[in-house]
Amino acid sequence: MPRRTIITFTTDFGLTDPFVGIMKGVILNINPEVELVDLSHQVSSYDILDGAFTLVESYQFFPPDTIHLVVVDPGVGSGRRPILARTMNYRFVAPDNGVLSMMMDREEAIEVRHITADQYFLKPVSDTFHARDVFAAVAGWLSRGIEPEKFGEVITDYARIAPPKPQRISANEVRGSVLKIDKFGNVITNLRPEDVPELFGEHPALLRIVVNKREITRLVSAYAMGRPREVFAILGSAGFLELATNLGSAAQLLEVSRGTELTTFFENHTTGFDQGKDGA
Amino acid sequence: MPRRTIITFTTDFGLTDPFVGIMKGVILNINPEVELVDLSHQVSSYDILDGAFTLVESYQFFPPDTIHLVVVDPGVGSGRRPILARTMNYRFVAPDNGVLSMMMDREEAIEVRHITADQYFLKPVSDTFHARDVFAAVAGWLSRGIEPEKFGEVITDYARIAPPKPQRISANEVRGSVLKIDKFGNVITNLRPEDVPELFGEHPALLRIVVNKREITRLVSAYAMGRPREVFAILGSAGFLELATNLGSAAQLLEVSRGTELTTFFENHTTGFDQGKDGA
Amino acid sequence: MPRRTIITFTTDFGLTDPFVGIMKGVILNINPEVELVDLSHQVSSYDILDGAFTLVESYQFFPPDTIHLVVVDPGVGSGRRPILARTMNYRFVAPDNGVLSMMMDREEAIEVRHITADQYFLKPVSDTFHARDVFAAVAGWLSRGIEPEKFGEVITDYARIAPPKPQRISANEVRGSVLKIDKFGNVITNLRPEDVPELFGEHPALLRIVVNKREITRLVSAYAMGRPREVFAILGSAGFLELATNLGSAAQLLEVSRGTELTTFFENHTTGFDQGKDGA
Repeated sequence: MPRRTIITFTTDFGLTDPFVGIMKGVILNINPEVELVDLSHQVSSYDILDGAFTLVESYQFFPPDTIHLVVVDPGVGSGRRPILARTMNYRFVAPDNGVLSMMMDREEAIEVRHITADQYFLKPVSDTFHARDVFAAVAGWLSRGIEPEKFGEVITDYARIAPPKPQRISANEVRGSVLKIDKFGNVITNLRPEDVPELFGEHPALLRIVVNKREITRLVSAYAMGRPREVFAILGSAGFLELATNLGSAAQLLEVSRGTELTTFFENHTTGFDQGKDGA
Repeated sequence: MPRRTIITFTTDFGLTDPFVGIMKGVILNINPEVELVDLSHQVSSYDILDGAFTLVESYQFFPPDTIHLVVVDPGVGSGRRPILARTMNYRFVAPDNGVLSMMMDREEAIEVRHITADQYFLKPVSDTFHARDVFAAVAGWLSRGIEPEKFGEVITDYARIAPPKPQRISANEVRGSVLKIDKFGNVITNLRPEDVPELFGEHPALLRIVVNKREITRLVSAYAMGRPREVFAILGSAGFLELATNLGSAAQLLEVSRGTELTTFFENHTTGFDQGKDGA
Repeated sequence: MPRRTIITFTTDFGLTDPFVGIMKGVILNINPEVELVDLSHQVSSYDILDGAFTLVESYQFFPPDTIHLVVVDPGVGSGRRPILARTMNYRFVAPDNGVLSMMMDREEAIEVRHITADQYFLKPVSDTFHARDVFAAVAGWLSRGIEPEKFGEVITDYARIAPPKPQRISANEVRGSVLKIDKFGNVITNLRPEDVPELFGEHPALLRIVVNKREITRLVSAYAMGRPREVFAILGSAGFLELATNLGSAAQLLEVSRGTELTTFFENHTTGFDQGKDGA
């Protein structure tokens, strides 16, 4: 019995309208033997970076040959191209607007094609719902075994967007920002361990994160280690430093939202803090 | 390998309670070899018309033999009948309250049966959860290959409801209303191209839609063609005229909601507007 | 063709983040031939009792051998144990925090194991996302046919929690509380028929439920039997007494929420009410 190909869905379509169900119908009409898995349909409307982040958190946990369908598509019906990207293990179908960028940052070899073979589209192709007429249809045919080469030519000028990068201000100061708030109110920053290696070495530096005039001074390894209403730092499951509180919403306690800036200060164990001028 | 039958779900059950999961358990208990696809569980509570619209947008995109299970059922436990409808390509299981009406408007030959064969129900049948005890169970047996004839007799007096119909007031004026607001804030009206043919001919008329003292004067073909904060008209993917804005919510800009009335005026290219007296 | 094992999901992860999709990827990577069914991902954050209730409403409707994965896990990364429970028909994978308690109350023979066999975990095991690294991975291997014995030793000191129990105050007075509000605003109490047998015998007693200075005096068998804006009592599909109103939210009308207390008075048909002092 041949294994069924998996298609995952990442969209900003929400779950109230039947947009996602319609896409699944189109795919099942082309290939009834697929396995359909939702990653999220609650990407912020039109928010390419949020879609990119949802995908990069998730795609590597799926079996090889999985097709990841990503539709956050503010430019639907304009000239933006539909693309098909291929890495060592996966295939991606998406609009050419940068929504695959964070995934691409993690992959070594990527082949990107401009999808032009409209014999694989659902006709007539609307100008308002390419998720149905182009992306779902192409993913369906791809899952049936049609080779990527058949869908269009390789391109190299595809769109890339960059999430805000942390800035190293001095030997003991790094500035970052909030990438996302998760369902529990955990504040996911754009700081990865390689941006703040002082915290993850054998003799970790003391930490002080200043955000919204609040200070966070403890790095813990599990949410349950937090004291009541304490906000602490923690390395989250997606590989980014998070600000969190045990059994509550750090985002509410800190009054932060996506994009809020934060500054991380280090000191080694033998010197005092270099107090920031707004240090509370 | 026989293809697995698809069962789709359209309900007003939401996703917080496990009602939908329970229905799926009941079905899988009867037939483990089905493919279960959610269309929407966020139909407005008890709103038969909203359920009818969700179904009619979606059902035709599924493969032949798909079973569409539709449970928006304010009359559960009262005398309303459970029905099984069959068209050329699909089967539908639903309460007899009109939730299949918009689908029926599009189909030529429909056979409707009153489901009475309680050997296919889950016992004991509750008075509060027919979605579980009647509709899911019947869909499960249907997907196993039980013939529609086995479930009950053909009826012709099944319930029909009519969505609000556009009214042609004069040669250049059509009145319509808002059918639905989608997740992006697009305002779906009840106007189809055949209701406003002036807009879709070879020489389309100039357009003026008046709603809530606001005027919309452009018909575009893609969302991305809108100017910042401009509300425009567009033919949406479900086949209805929509009012929309690029990268934002037209419903918020216009302050409209379901049921809001709107008037569409046409003029041909050589004459001036027939200004409505409330024209802003 | 061997039947695919079903894995159900009950979590407090919500649907905005891709946490659930990631768990599904992990499982499909271990066993592509599973059937994945969501019960609910909208359990209140960290709310073990709400998770326990969601599970107990649902699990028995699934086919034998179904694996129920339940992750409401405020103690993730602390010392709490992962457990694997087995009943006559089902298997359950969950943190050892009592989330399986209500299910256990209904089952006669339960075997519980402390999951220690880390060869079945996803490495490296994080301290923040055991749903992915421990629970999903174990459920995946279990669905592949690995015997429960392989995952760890039997324990008997697993956690139990008790939902608030009704109290019989006198021959004609029982106090209870609100267990949950469902999507429609139905108020699910903790009163089962065996707690108020007076209502369900051959000659049911007259009923008066006092909650928030409001009185409910009718027990009906179907929602549609309610009069406009009347709040009535009804035996709900999960086997608990509910307070409900036809086509509306009883929770809003009564201004109650989870935990609100209520008192039920009975009288037989020949005597007057024993009026509570707050009787409106």
